[in-house]
Amino acid sequence: MGSSAIPPLSTIFLLELFLIMILYLIYLFQVQHTEIEVSLNSFRSEKQYQHKILWKMLMKRVVSSFIPSLGFSSLSASMVKSGDVLKQVRIFSSSDVLEYSKLSHDLNPLHFDIESAQNAGFEDRLVHGMLIASLFPRIIASHFPGAVYVSQSLQFRSPVYIGEEVIGEVQATNIREIKNKYIAKFKTKCFKHGDHLVVEGEATAILPTLAMEQGQSTG
Amino acid sequence: MGSSAIPPLSTIFLLELFLIMILYLIYLFQVQHTEIEVSLNSFRSEKQYQHKILWKMLMKRVVSSFIPSLGFSSLSASMVKSGDVLKQVRIFSSSDVLEYSKLSHDLNPLHFDIESAQNAGFEDRLVHGMLIASLFPRIIASHFPGAVYVSQSLQFRSPVYIGEEVIGEVQATNIREIKNKYIAKFKTKCFKHGDHLVVEGEATAILPTLAMEQGQSTG
Repeated sequence: MGSSAIPPLSTIFLLELFLIMILYLIYLFQVQHTEIEVSLNSFRSEKQYQHKILWKMLMKRVVSSFIPSLGFSSLSASMVKSGDVLKQVRIFSSSDVLEYSKLSHDLNPLHFDIESAQNAGFEDRLVHGMLIASLFPRIIASHFPGAVYVSQSLQFRSPVYIGEEVIGEVQATNIREIKNKYIAKFKTKCFKHGDHLVVEGEATAILPTLAMEQGQSTG
Repeated sequence: MGSSAIPPLSTIFLLELFLIMILYLIYLFQVQHTEIEVSLNSFRSEKQYQHKILWKMLMKRVVSSFIPSLGFSSLSASMVKSGDVLKQVRIFSSSDVLEYSKLSHDLNPLHFDIESAQNAGFEDRLVHGMLIASLFPRIIASHFPGAVYVSQSLQFRSPVYIGEEVIGEVQATNIREIKNKYIAKFKTKCFKHGDHLVVEGEATAILPTLAMEQGQSTG
């Protein structure tokens, strides 16, 4: 009774499943590849790097446009709501701190000279506060590409030394819709040694959508 | 009448003057040299760069310890007081934005993809807000090496596009002495096109001294 119509449907399903797996593997490879190359600083050519990022964004779009249409709810984007917490882990290396000082032209000896750092009452060379704070817009942008940063407050509670693992946390506290966009407020915190608060504050960002993309949790 | 005692004194004076000029020229050469190399990103070796910064700091110390002892008041450090404004100019290039994104792992398309930027209502690719904000601790640290950043609030009022000249301004509003150190509050503002406000906020920093060093005004 109509059972002859089932085989073609299951063939299409298997074909789609296969296609998704291939695309997902390519996507994962791209993400990993980009992350590794970013952290190794192996891109000397600006154009090459820009091309890589645009290619990664394209792959993300292709994958995310395929997955929701097939109802993979565990892989598809979920919607952010008040109370949601997004986290990312980071260790700032000596070379990160030097690169940041070159870029910002900030030559404060606390970041280079252990003696100056110790004279100021610290144990070791400090990571620049603004470099630690870069975790917050990064977490927001990795889940909401195209998010526009509106404000950020920062209280630097404790020093972060080079090589220490920090966890950045962003918690949505209020979301309002205005003209098809969303103004979201976040509590922003950064911890070391598990639960030792080092930076706290609040951020506001305009999100183009409430649908969250899968951001990288480490790097 | 003791006139035979004068020639040696003037000889010592001339000798000291000569020594100061030599040291000052070496210092100027070091500062310029470091600035140029920093902006050209020509240091590939971390150790080499770190060594350069420490050498520059040492030269600064040598020069500043010589100059005040000889009463060159126009060259010696002045003391910061409430109302004082410190300014620095900066243009963030496309390569600065790419370097910052590598460092922060912030891959928000607004910084790379002109189409994404225009879809979000902007004219061109944006400079990361936190990169613009790096001007404030840089201005403070360049006048007060060893300053410790305590807090910063940031309101991003207008976009800054790649290649636009911005002026960072830091105005001391309140200075208190606590345990031989100074807690200073600053109004922090950033302008483009002369007087168009792009970022504003407040910062608090612990200064090791109120004596200001000569910071670079551009870069």
